[in-house]
Amino acid sequence: MASSETRVTPWEAEAFVDYDRLIKVFGTKPLSDAEVELLARAAGEIHFMVRRRVFYSHRDFDAFLRDYLEGKKVALYTGRGPSSYTHLGHILPWVFTRWLQERLGLHLFFQFTDDEKFLHEPGSRLEDTNSMAYENALDVIAIGFDPSRTHFVIDSEDIRFLYPIAVRVAKKITFSMDRAVFGFTDSTNVGMLFYPSLQIAMCFLPTEIFGESTRVLIPAGIDQDPYWRIARDIAQSLGYPKPAQIHNKLLPGLGPEGKMSSSKPETAIYTVDPPEVAKRKVMRAFTGGQPTAELQRKLGGNPDRCSVFKMVEMLLEPDDSIVRKLYEDCRSGAILCGECKRIVGEKVARFLEEHQRRRERARDALPRFLIRNKFDPPPVRRLRG
Amino acid sequence: MASSETRVTPWEAEAFVDYDRLIKVFGTKPLSDAEVELLARAAGEIHFMVRRRVFYSHRDFDAFLRDYLEGKKVALYTGRGPSSYTHLGHILPWVFTRWLQERLGLHLFFQFTDDEKFLHEPGSRLEDTNSMAYENALDVIAIGFDPSRTHFVIDSEDIRFLYPIAVRVAKKITFSMDRAVFGFTDSTNVGMLFYPSLQIAMCFLPTEIFGESTRVLIPAGIDQDPYWRIARDIAQSLGYPKPAQIHNKLLPGLGPEGKMSSSKPETAIYTVDPPEVAKRKVMRAFTGGQPTAELQRKLGGNPDRCSVFKMVEMLLEPDDSIVRKLYEDCRSGAILCGECKRIVGEKVARFLEEHQRRRERARDALPRFLIRNKFDPPPVRRLRG
Repeated sequence: MASSETRVTPWEAEAFVDYDRLIKVFGTKPLSDAEVELLARAAGEIHFMVRRRVFYSHRDFDAFLRDYLEGKKVALYTGRGPSSYTHLGHILPWVFTRWLQERLGLHLFFQFTDDEKFLHEPGSRLEDTNSMAYENALDVIAIGFDPSRTHFVIDSEDIRFLYPIAVRVAKKITFSMDRAVFGFTDSTNVGMLFYPSLQIAMCFLPTEIFGESTRVLIPAGIDQDPYWRIARDIAQSLGYPKPAQIHNKLLPGLGPEGKMSSSKPETAIYTVDPPEVAKRKVMRAFTGGQPTAELQRKLGGNPDRCSVFKMVEMLLEPDDSIVRKLYEDCRSGAILCGECKRIVGEKVARFLEEHQRRRERARDALPRFLIRNKFDPPPVRRLRG
Repeated sequence: MASSETRVTPWEAEAFVDYDRLIKVFGTKPLSDAEVELLARAAGEIHFMVRRRVFYSHRDFDAFLRDYLEGKKVALYTGRGPSSYTHLGHILPWVFTRWLQERLGLHLFFQFTDDEKFLHEPGSRLEDTNSMAYENALDVIAIGFDPSRTHFVIDSEDIRFLYPIAVRVAKKITFSMDRAVFGFTDSTNVGMLFYPSLQIAMCFLPTEIFGESTRVLIPAGIDQDPYWRIARDIAQSLGYPKPAQIHNKLLPGLGPEGKMSSSKPETAIYTVDPPEVAKRKVMRAFTGGQPTAELQRKLGGNPDRCSVFKMVEMLLEPDDSIVRKLYEDCRSGAILCGECKRIVGEKVARFLEEHQRRRERARDALPRFLIRNKFDPPPVRRLRG
């Protein structure tokens, strides 16, 4: 919940936060009409997630778009920490990223941080986070990315693509900086202390792969900003362009508070949930409704604080008029939560059915997405910087 | 020099130290007749470096030899930090390691830590330490190792062999431990903080490569002991046997004090030095001689503190009777430093001529030594522990 205690680090992030406040805390810029117009010029249309400011904040998105419009080489980079099966909250930025890839014709570098999830979770096993990376990869493929332009880096196996860049990054990060930026302590393990260098190295990999200066745009939650702050600080001293970012709001979980999170599985809809199970989760969701049907008809609900409405607005429904009608019917009391949940439950079920069909087909396509099957690692003796 | 200020860390080590004291400081065991007899039983002979206690201290060398004698899988592991061209001080343990390989028929895993040398030296470039790794590799090959049983790991390029093991090591090392063992501080870079995990991972790589428990013996200077102390502490919790070590004394430099060191190039004989240059370095060496020829004839010299004699005793002359005669002639004043230096200068020149011939031939043999040309990295999902 939005409060002075809101914490947003790469390991702890809430939904329903005060996003204006986050922009101030992180020192990013709100996504303004100027950037949206630039994007429209580049893409020929505007994605609903931008129109609705699901993507709401950025760093250098304008510079990235100008680079693109001037014909300079640019690429996309995002990733996934494979600690659990994918849920709808993970999917959200990927849907927008895929749209960007398609509209702008861009390469996407996608990192699966099986090492970091293993290092961060006491008792976890690397073989498990690695297996989960391949499960999550199926979901990424199911979103519809172009295999000829989408390159998966699975840290523990594709480390040779990152390590020679990462040591040059690591040489510029002291323990003090690490502690200040990420909240690490004396009892943090040394794998975690090094890990940020790998996530930062990904920003610079496209430049090495293509052999020309390639600015990346990172669509991701603002909780990842600490990594990119360091990346931006050191980019130029290593001979790379600064990465740009565009930040999305976090999809709320189906419980009374918090983002959709694997730590509360009953409040998350997983891509592998049977559609009937997902429908039941929606039926049990916490909403912005009133205590009784009578009060709801009289006072209306509060879609702005309703996890069910947010799922529709932020992810499931591209048609603005449908979203607007649902919003107004909720506000006016014309629709009650039970009916709304049935409608949204059906939407979710249809989404999952289609996704699961694509996800099964993704198994065969996987090898075409692995960077190791397509590129050689950048030669150590020809690195920049 | 031996004093209460003697420092022996992986980055700072002196020669002419009090080796009995080092054994106490590090808590290792002196090499005793019992281990030497075990080695003789295994190898069928005794190497002069063992007979002369150039190798003088160990951890679990006896357990390693018993494993070998019982037919259990064992291997050798050593390495080189490629910060400079190879000098005779580096060569010394390799000569013994080659003998061990040949007599016991063992695989040797040899690590070139181009990453660590880059991370440790301000202003250095990774491409330079990487190039130097290949220069040093030629010297290793020139020593005569068996290419079918000798496997080079060059960190920055062969990282995929080590990283999946290293993250499991890293998860067990906190910043506090790192600081206590290696003297790291808040301003140490995070690459250095992680690096010990890679050097430790090498101890466990043979087990993963061969798919069976493989204890390694590490012939190296005692200054590397901090790494192996951690390796031994965590080995069993990861499902690996504890590494054994055997420690050599450091070859003195040609100056009045200190080990042969690249930081004092005029006191070091490099394998790429033209033989005539090497002879001149020997002629200018600091010896255990007296201020005048007259005093030397009367009082004799002190070969125990003479860098020229030590080179003969520790590295160049396998024949004990020749070494003993030189020692006694020096002690008695029968030989003066000038004459001794001419003799030793000739020995050094002959050693270098032969080495340089082999070193040139090594260029063609190099690919047969690279681990990446011979093995697949251990699959992440089938790691131990």
